[in-house]
Parts: sequence; C-alpha cells; structure tokens
Amino acid sequence: MNIGVLGPKGSYTEKATKQWLNRNHHESDNSLKYCDDIQDVFFALNSGSVDIGVVPLENSIEGSVGVTLDMLLESDVSVIGETVVVVEHCLLSRGKKEDIKIILSHPQGLAQCRQFLKEQFRNVELRTTGSTSHAAKLATEFTEMAAIASKEAAETYDLDVLISNIQDRKQNQTRFFVIIPSDGQQLFENITQYNADDQDYKTSIIVYLDRDRPGALYEILSEFAQKDINLTRIESRPSKQSLGDYVFYIDLEGYINDGIIKDAIYNVKSKVGMLKILGSYPEYKTDLI
Amino acid sequence: MNIGVLGPKGSYTEKATKQWLNRNHHESDNSLKYCDDIQDVFFALNSGSVDIGVVPLENSIEGSVGVTLDMLLESDVSVIGETVVVVEHCLLSRGKKEDIKIILSHPQGLAQCRQFLKEQFRNVELRTTGSTSHAAKLATEFTEMAAIASKEAAETYDLDVLISNIQDRKQNQTRFFVIIPSDGQQLFENITQYNADDQDYKTSIIVYLDRDRPGALYEILSEFAQKDINLTRIESRPSKQSLGDYVFYIDLEGYINDGIIKDAIYNVKSKVGMLKILGSYPEYKTDLI
Repeated sequence: MNIGVLGPKGSYTEKATKQWLNRNHHESDNSLKYCDDIQDVFFALNSGSVDIGVVPLENSIEGSVGVTLDMLLESDVSVIGETVVVVEHCLLSRGKKEDIKIILSHPQGLAQCRQFLKEQFRNVELRTTGSTSHAAKLATEFTEMAAIASKEAAETYDLDVLISNIQDRKQNQTRFFVIIPSDGQQLFENITQYNADDQDYKTSIIVYLDRDRPGALYEILSEFAQKDINLTRIESRPSKQSLGDYVFYIDLEGYINDGIIKDAIYNVKSKVGMLKILGSYPEYKTDLI
Repeated sequence: MNIGVLGPKGSYTEKATKQWLNRNHHESDNSLKYCDDIQDVFFALNSGSVDIGVVPLENSIEGSVGVTLDMLLESDVSVIGETVVVVEHCLLSRGKKEDIKIILSHPQGLAQCRQFLKEQFRNVELRTTGSTSHAAKLATEFTEMAAIASKEAAETYDLDVLISNIQDRKQNQTRFFVIIPSDGQQLFENITQYNADDQDYKTSIIVYLDRDRPGALYEILSEFAQKDINLTRIESRPSKQSLGDYVFYIDLEGYINDGIIKDAIYNVKSKVGMLKILGSYPEYKTDLI
C-alpha cells in the first residue's frame, strides 16, 4: 500500500502510521509518501497517488487540528481507523541554548509549548512549518535555529536535544485518523472488515444544524441519549458562513450498521441541515490485551 | 479608564475596543495600554495595571482563539461586554509582491488566509507574531517581508497594501470579549448596569463534565431546553488532563439574575464537575436601531 503521511521523515504522523500498521498487522509491503502539509495528504488520496492517508485530528493540550476538520468535511474520504500517539516535544538544535534566536514548529507544536516559550524564549522569533519534522529539517541549517519536534526527529536529522519534554503539560497525546477515498472501501475489505467479537467500534459523523433552530443540538443529543448511545466527543467548528454558525463533529460508540446506530443516525438526519458519515472504525485502546 | 488591548497600535483588538467604547458612550478619558500578546492582557488586568481588557474570542473562519478560552478558565475575570469586528486582511509590505520571502502574522491571521498563502506563496516562510499589528510593525524592516494585517495597520506603519481582502472567505468576522477583574464589578456599575428595557443580554459559562458521565452534556442541554433558554454557542476545549476530556464554553440568551436563568444554572451546577459563570453582558447587534 502507498500511505500518505505528513512529512518529512521523523514526523509524529509517521510514528502514528507505524503504530497503526503494527497493531493491525499490515507491516509488510507499505511505502510511505511524505506530504508537505495536511491538506496535501487529502489531495494525494483524492488524486489516487496514495491508497491510505494518516492525519492528526486532535491534541490533548491544544485541541482540534482545524485544517483536518475542514478537510474531513470538504473531501470525499472515509475514516477506517484511529490511533493515539504520546507526544513528548523536545527543543532540537545544532547550536547552544543561549544562541537560539529562531524557534520553528507546526502551529500545534508552538501552541502546546506556549508557556515554555514564554518563560524561556520570550524574545525569540517563532516560525511555523507544515510539520514538526519539517521544522527539525530546517533547524539543521543554522546554529541559531531550534525546532520543537520529537526525539525521533532529532535522530533523523542529527540534531541535539537541548531540552526534552517541553510541552505545557506532562501528559500530551495526539489522536490520528486513518483515511481512504470514500469510493475505495471495497479495496480495503481486509482492513475494514467488521469483527464485533474482538473489537469495540466508534463511528464519526459531521452534522450541520440549521442556524435558526437553536434547540437542534439538544434534539440530536436526545436521539442518542434515548438509545443509550455514548458520545465520546462533540466538537464545534465554524461553518465559515457567518459568526455563530457551526458544524458539529460527533464521535459515538458503535458500528454504523448496528440497528440502533443506524436508526439513531436516520432520525438525526431528518432533523439537521446536513449529515455526513465519516465512517466506523475499531476503537483505539491504550492497553492491548 | 486604562484599557489593556492586544498591541501594538493598529491591531483588530484596538478597532474592537474603539467600536465598543463608541457604542457604549465611554469615549472620553480612556488610555489604551498595548500588550504583547493575549495572555498579557489577562496578566495586566490581574496585576491592576489596567481596569478593563479586550481580547479576541472567536473568528468566523478559523474558530476559537485557544489561548483566550484557556485564560478565561484560568483567570479571575468577568465578561462585561462583547463586540464583533469585520476582518478584512491585507498583504502589507514595503517591497513588491515578487520579492516577498517571509510572511508574518498572528496564527489566526495565517490560518484565515490558508488557501491564499498556499496558492500564491507556497514556498514563502511563515512566521507567527503576537498580533497582526506586530507583524505589520516588523514588516517595515525589510522589503522581502510582508504582513497579514488590517488596512489600518498599513496606515499606522506606512506600508503598501499589496493585495486586499485575502482571507479564504469574503465574510470574515471576529468576536471580542470585554473583561474586568472578577472582584472589580462594583467599580464598573455604570457600564455593567442592567437595563432590560433597551437591551438583550447574553450570559457566558464554562462547565466541566465528569468524564465518566457521557450523557452529562445532554442533561445540561435538556435543562436549558426545558426552560426555552436559547444557546447561541457551544464550544468544546480540551481540559488538558487527557485526550477525550473536555470543558464546554456555553453562551446563552438571558441575564444571570433572571429567575429562569438562575434556576437553570443552579440545576446545571448540581450535575457537573465544575461551573464557572463568566458574566452577563449586552448582546452585540449588527444593526443599531
């Protein structure tokens, strides 16, 4: 399989991809294609240059990755998997701490280390890059540059770890989605095969509520609550039409073809302006049995 | 009054502040104190160096301003007002378009112009600053630098507007909160005075649901729905404890001391892990009568 990931080499997305492949026993015959940014992973999927994509979705310190949410809504993709990676940011450089004038990272990396940067590097220039590993790659060029990226990126680009574990909370995790083109589901039957005996499942949907019905979110939640369907996440995101107009990203426990889930989604559909089913996938569990 | 705003001169926050003062007839005897970033506005309030602060809360393209949400939760502040500013980003520089190698802006400015940057400046270096006006100020130094900021910032720093209206959607608005220290409410009686005859009010709260009660959000919404209280916004934000653990920012129509709102909040309080009342304030209306 050709797998599109956020590149270059050494990104957290690469780590997430390897972890997901490993857990799902798809280690062999894969080739990673490193994309410049998150949007490009979606474009590579839609152009057919990769079969599968892996993208960061949300982080436990800084929250949702906006561009991923937007692309999930705009692109014809389905979610077939999720995985969670422990994120331990390090400050990487070829220079010394006192020489650092510029710090580079993905906007999420900078935001997850906001306190650290403010306390220790208040007057340093901050630059954003398409990924943390791209920041590491650029930081090899000048000793006055440092990157916020992973230990693995330090090894990949032969940088020194000046300070480790610099994110604002010790506990830091990022959740990733594994995605395929919506029309390609049958090609991945071996991966997406439903196996309720061994697996719990989650289903992700996006709903757009009509603006002039402020009680609509309550009605939707009530549909799920009445059927005892657990929601594991509700995230609002601007519809981009006007202020105060949102789409909601909802994750729930269950498989899309379970009768109860199917019924609930059917009912919800009749109450909202738009409903998009992103897909059902095995739930990530921290401790594998 | 001393008012803390995101500086330097020429920021959208400054524009929001003037608009709010003007609408509320507090134009006289004010002195603006320009802060380096959003956190510093909160710190200035808590240290007493300013009486009032104005901070950006959410944007119609890119959504919530994470650091503002976090500081509203962590700081002892109350919200006494809101205002909405139309945002028309421009590309500002002393150089020519073809010479631009570096583009600077606040992370929200960069994100609101993501498509534009990708299509027209794919290989340009992106740098983040504490505000769009700070980006404009820095862009005066080199002709190969450009800033994403307002027309007003171009005038303030004598920069050329290379391209105007560059955000990814024509319609672009940012909502701001006007905040004071929580223990200072009586000092602002003239501003915060309740006037139900002439004004509609909104109330903002933050709730933290216990993680092991997935139906809790539904129960809260049901409390408001039963009382016909309209919710104008629900926004989730990581609690920063662990992935899948959220606090919710809720805006509702009504004044905190209205019997019906008071009752609802009292009931909600008994069902959640934490409830913080940010305050009640006159609703911003686009068309003043």
